[in-house]
Amino acid sequence: MKKIENLLTIEELSNEQINHLIEKSIYFKNNKTIIPKLKKDIFIANLFFENSTRTHKSFEVAEKMLGFKSIEFQTETSSIQKGETLYDTVLTLGSINISGLVIRHPDKEYYKELLQSKNIKSKIINAGDGVGEHPTQSLLDLMTIYENFKTFKEIKVAICGDLKHSRVAHSNMKILKRLGAKVYFAGPKEWFENNYNDYGEYKTIDEIINKVDVLMLLRVQNERHTDRLNNSINYLEEFGLNISRYNRLKEGSIIMHPCPVNRNVEIESSLIESEKSKLLEQMTNGLYMRIAILYELFKDEF
Amino acid sequence: MKKIENLLTIEELSNEQINHLIEKSIYFKNNKTIIPKLKKDIFIANLFFENSTRTHKSFEVAEKMLGFKSIEFQTETSSIQKGETLYDTVLTLGSINISGLVIRHPDKEYYKELLQSKNIKSKIINAGDGVGEHPTQSLLDLMTIYENFKTFKEIKVAICGDLKHSRVAHSNMKILKRLGAKVYFAGPKEWFENNYNDYGEYKTIDEIINKVDVLMLLRVQNERHTDRLNNSINYLEEFGLNISRYNRLKEGSIIMHPCPVNRNVEIESSLIESEKSKLLEQMTNGLYMRIAILYELFKDEF
Amino acid sequence: MKKIENLLTIEELSNEQINHLIEKSIYFKNNKTIIPKLKKDIFIANLFFENSTRTHKSFEVAEKMLGFKSIEFQTETSSIQKGETLYDTVLTLGSINISGLVIRHPDKEYYKELLQSKNIKSKIINAGDGVGEHPTQSLLDLMTIYENFKTFKEIKVAICGDLKHSRVAHSNMKILKRLGAKVYFAGPKEWFENNYNDYGEYKTIDEIINKVDVLMLLRVQNERHTDRLNNSINYLEEFGLNISRYNRLKEGSIIMHPCPVNRNVEIESSLIESEKSKLLEQMTNGLYMRIAILYELFKDEF
Repeated sequence: MKKIENLLTIEELSNEQINHLIEKSIYFKNNKTIIPKLKKDIFIANLFFENSTRTHKSFEVAEKMLGFKSIEFQTETSSIQKGETLYDTVLTLGSINISGLVIRHPDKEYYKELLQSKNIKSKIINAGDGVGEHPTQSLLDLMTIYENFKTFKEIKVAICGDLKHSRVAHSNMKILKRLGAKVYFAGPKEWFENNYNDYGEYKTIDEIINKVDVLMLLRVQNERHTDRLNNSINYLEEFGLNISRYNRLKEGSIIMHPCPVNRNVEIESSLIESEKSKLLEQMTNGLYMRIAILYELFKDEF
Repeated sequence: MKKIENLLTIEELSNEQINHLIEKSIYFKNNKTIIPKLKKDIFIANLFFENSTRTHKSFEVAEKMLGFKSIEFQTETSSIQKGETLYDTVLTLGSINISGLVIRHPDKEYYKELLQSKNIKSKIINAGDGVGEHPTQSLLDLMTIYENFKTFKEIKVAICGDLKHSRVAHSNMKILKRLGAKVYFAGPKEWFENNYNDYGEYKTIDEIINKVDVLMLLRVQNERHTDRLNNSINYLEEFGLNISRYNRLKEGSIIMHPCPVNRNVEIESSLIESEKSKLLEQMTNGLYMRIAILYELFKDEF
Repeated sequence: MKKIENLLTIEELSNEQINHLIEKSIYFKNNKTIIPKLKKDIFIANLFFENSTRTHKSFEVAEKMLGFKSIEFQTETSSIQKGETLYDTVLTLGSINISGLVIRHPDKEYYKELLQSKNIKSKIINAGDGVGEHPTQSLLDLMTIYENFKTFKEIKVAICGDLKHSRVAHSNMKILKRLGAKVYFAGPKEWFENNYNDYGEYKTIDEIINKVDVLMLLRVQNERHTDRLNNSINYLEEFGLNISRYNRLKEGSIIMHPCPVNRNVEIESSLIESEKSKLLEQMTNGLYMRIAILYELFKDEF
């Protein structure tokens, strides 16, 4: 298997690499005591230019569980405030013994400029590039599906909701198709774009609810909208998961959501911790997937 | 002695538990080299939704002295900014291997909702719940009194100042009475509420100054006031500790204040580091009391 | 050699102490594996009241490489917001087992008040005091010059640009003269003050460019200016390092800049990573110089 040098997009990973990360993360989750520890000091900096709880803190915990030294980069008290660019910031951090950079940044493909520099030697881990990708979220989603069904082949996955603004949706539709799953889309039709037809079929949630193995709900990303849905629309009743739809889900099916949830918008509040819900499991899986990723990226140091 | 599972209020602790924590903290303070270290990785997150220096940083130092892995949760760059609730934040942190949560939050009794969830398994340590309680401050205050007098029985304690807005005052009046101390109140009469009569007597500071063993000054909490005292009042001369009152304090008596001090309001600036002042000692005691608390909560892991 | 107790200004260091720090930092840089580790827990807090990336993060990495426990003090979520002073903050941190304080503060000579207190026992490391000094930047600059020329004697250094607002310029002109270098100044004449004549001569950049060993560019500190340069001036062409000036630099000469750079203002963007540029090297040197400083300050603990 080709070594993973940076983690930038999910598409660049081969099926073999994805399967390896899934197996490794499930193995670490089930065997916590054998998670390896670095023998020497290796520094990773976390640079979050957009708000985050789950991704940020699970990276930080993952780093510390593996024995990395974590450095928190605070954008709001850094030289970013004096006008310093991301490129110059990364150049700086690489110059002071920081070997890995976990970056969330509003610019799509922010990493391209960084990779062109011969002076940037730190590994880059993309924790979200604007409306681009969020590969560690995709990987933890895949891990969760695989953990439940032991395969992707013919698994029916409906991706429902804010398809247009969700970086996770864009990655997941492509990769799920590649891995053999059958993808459907649901949610407000104005958020469905023509090119999604390449990956799966559009259905209403009521047409699809009793057929899917995985109901993958997306967060309504109010912070990215300019075409905000008319407030008169009751999103939950039209497009979300309410109790009557929950009751139509077939046996063995699971509910996913990248979180944070807008309670009673994408999903009725009482269903968040329901039996079919894998929302908490996804968070836990995110930790072990990030452990697996960091381990693979720095394999030679363990 | 009953094991302490969460630390939420001082009232829920038995006298036996309080005395045990006081003894343990004084023991750790006097024997720093024997403070135990965790043998495995245990994560604690510090969530401060209100400003703090002393409480926040002494918890962080205490955690690190005991060998915990500390995670700083920054409310201002987290998904709280996307509207995520405290409950969902705690659910998230608990899902990513965080075993303890030190929380300061503006909502009184914020912890009640958290304790009802079967999915929240992290221990909760209350670092201040709005106008509610601040149990670790109470405990460090008790430790300071005990360290000086070796008993609470018949110790005369005057609690002076912003009784109405001080979460420490509410806890301390109840617990000091329970432990056998004699409580008095002083300060602006409009901040004295009727139910305080259950715990002690109201006196002017000049009536009580030469009789007390402990002069416990409270911070004027400008940030919580709407009924701000008339600016024309000279608080220090009417209600605070100035030099002439300091000179009337009896031998062996001590001055306390939870800090931060408003210099020349509650206390004349030059008295902060005076002989009778225990203000710095209280901060140091806060560190060792928090070490004792964390040790008790995670006793099985040492 | 006299032990260094606090690091406040560069002037207070003897030539012997400076040379010792330079040798030590170069030694650590070239022998990373022998950097010593503390045997016990010693806490250092980083207090940055002004924005910083390089200084802040290289101190944090240096602390962690030496085995210190780092505490990040966040001014914006601390009791500073309740009006607590720097003095009271330092008193607090010293009371909770914090032995060293790395402080950047907008007030010139903020440390004088701190040193007068008998109750402040933490060592103070000045990471910049307003328009005052920035001794660790001076030391890393000296390290970089020494690393390249193995001497300061007769080395020709031109300090170019915002002389008036640069705390680094003030320190460097004095110390470079003391160490035997020959100092020149260039840049907008209105930023050249009469007393600089004591340390070196004013020249235009074009008069001096082909004679210097070290071209030390200064950042135009827009955030400190009120007498902002007329926007119609093309700073780069009049005072900065463009390609035609770069080509006139003599063989073996080096370019320095404390960073962050205003690209295409002090220096043409493409020259930042050019052969003669030591900008990245300065950042790396900053890390090892700070390791050497912390090691010297806490020598007895290793």
